[in-house]
Amino acid sequence: MMTTASSPKKRRPGRPPVVADARERILLEASKLFAQSGYENSSIHELAAAIGMTKPAIYHYFATKQDIYDAIILRTLEGLIAEVFPAVQAETSAVDKLRVFMTVHAAYLERNYWSFVAMLVGFSGMSPHYREDAARLRDEYERFLRRILEQGVKEGVFRAGQVAVSGRAVLSLLNWMSRWFKPGHGSKAEHIALEYFELLYAGLCVRPAS
Amino acid sequence: MMTTASSPKKRRPGRPPVVADARERILLEASKLFAQSGYENSSIHELAAAIGMTKPAIYHYFATKQDIYDAIILRTLEGLIAEVFPAVQAETSAVDKLRVFMTVHAAYLERNYWSFVAMLVGFSGMSPHYREDAARLRDEYERFLRRILEQGVKEGVFRAGQVAVSGRAVLSLLNWMSRWFKPGHGSKAEHIALEYFELLYAGLCVRPAS
Repeated sequence: MMTTASSPKKRRPGRPPVVADARERILLEASKLFAQSGYENSSIHELAAAIGMTKPAIYHYFATKQDIYDAIILRTLEGLIAEVFPAVQAETSAVDKLRVFMTVHAAYLERNYWSFVAMLVGFSGMSPHYREDAARLRDEYERFLRRILEQGVKEGVFRAGQVAVSGRAVLSLLNWMSRWFKPGHGSKAEHIALEYFELLYAGLCVRPAS
Repeated sequence: MMTTASSPKKRRPGRPPVVADARERILLEASKLFAQSGYENSSIHELAAAIGMTKPAIYHYFATKQDIYDAIILRTLEGLIAEVFPAVQAETSAVDKLRVFMTVHAAYLERNYWSFVAMLVGFSGMSPHYREDAARLRDEYERFLRRILEQGVKEGVFRAGQVAVSGRAVLSLLNWMSRWFKPGHGSKAEHIALEYFELLYAGLCVRPAS
């Protein structure tokens, strides 16, 4: 750890609280722990040891382990949307929008690797216990992608009748990266996403009768 | 449970052991448990309760929880190969082979849902601890898929230079199904795989210059 633990208990009046910083460290270290050991196998005790904080200090910010996990998911989805949506909206054609959607998503995955893996992999089992907010953001993200694909159909560039399957394919390809992609090893995530885009693109496009 | 527990301790001489049956039940129930609760969160104690066996009865067949998990992975991969390989080899063209690879894989996933999910999802964390045998089978399966794609390139049907990315895409699409697909809800797995195949197919094929 670069910084030493600063217990909120020791805050003196007049000294600004280091809430944001401590919260950040808890969320980052918890992401790593959940991603590597699994959510169920990770305890607040281990988390406290990894950060160099006391358990009560962690409980000052988060009441439960589930709350930490929920915060990781929410932040990861909010950050993803905050990067992907404007980048896509800066493009005009559906093809450019889809390419940007996939590459910016992948670049975000690479830069937020641990929280992404914690979100998609670290919480094992079949019920990711998405809370309402997270479910809403995820749905919003999926609708945004579908609108890109629908625009492509309207433009006459993407074949009709494939919006559902191609939307699912785009997200499956990107999501599965959380299982095998390792930042710093091999290709950049953005490059991989570009290859996927090119593969799907030719599949999506209206082809001259063959 | 349909059958009652048959403790191996109570076997009398002359009575054939019910090894296969008990092993099967342990593996099936363990798959469900790992898939639903995660590997780390599942105990032999819970498994014993779910099956209606004693813990010592389970330890009679498997020395550790890891051994049960390894057996699930090995069996799942062996069964997958035993179904997919002959079905693919019965086809001639690379296009037919790829279609059969994807649809038979998906049908197998549907019929072996819990063990598949336990293999791909239930073991959380970044190190699936593949043992040598499992890693060998997985590599064999991936090489088999690559050979189909390479055959398609030789046939002049699939575009060159896409074998690596399209092989990865095929497996990513199929693997991510273990995260969202639910047997008995919505489309059959085979139908979904066929849609994926059709999406990728057009992307893989040599297109008239456009």
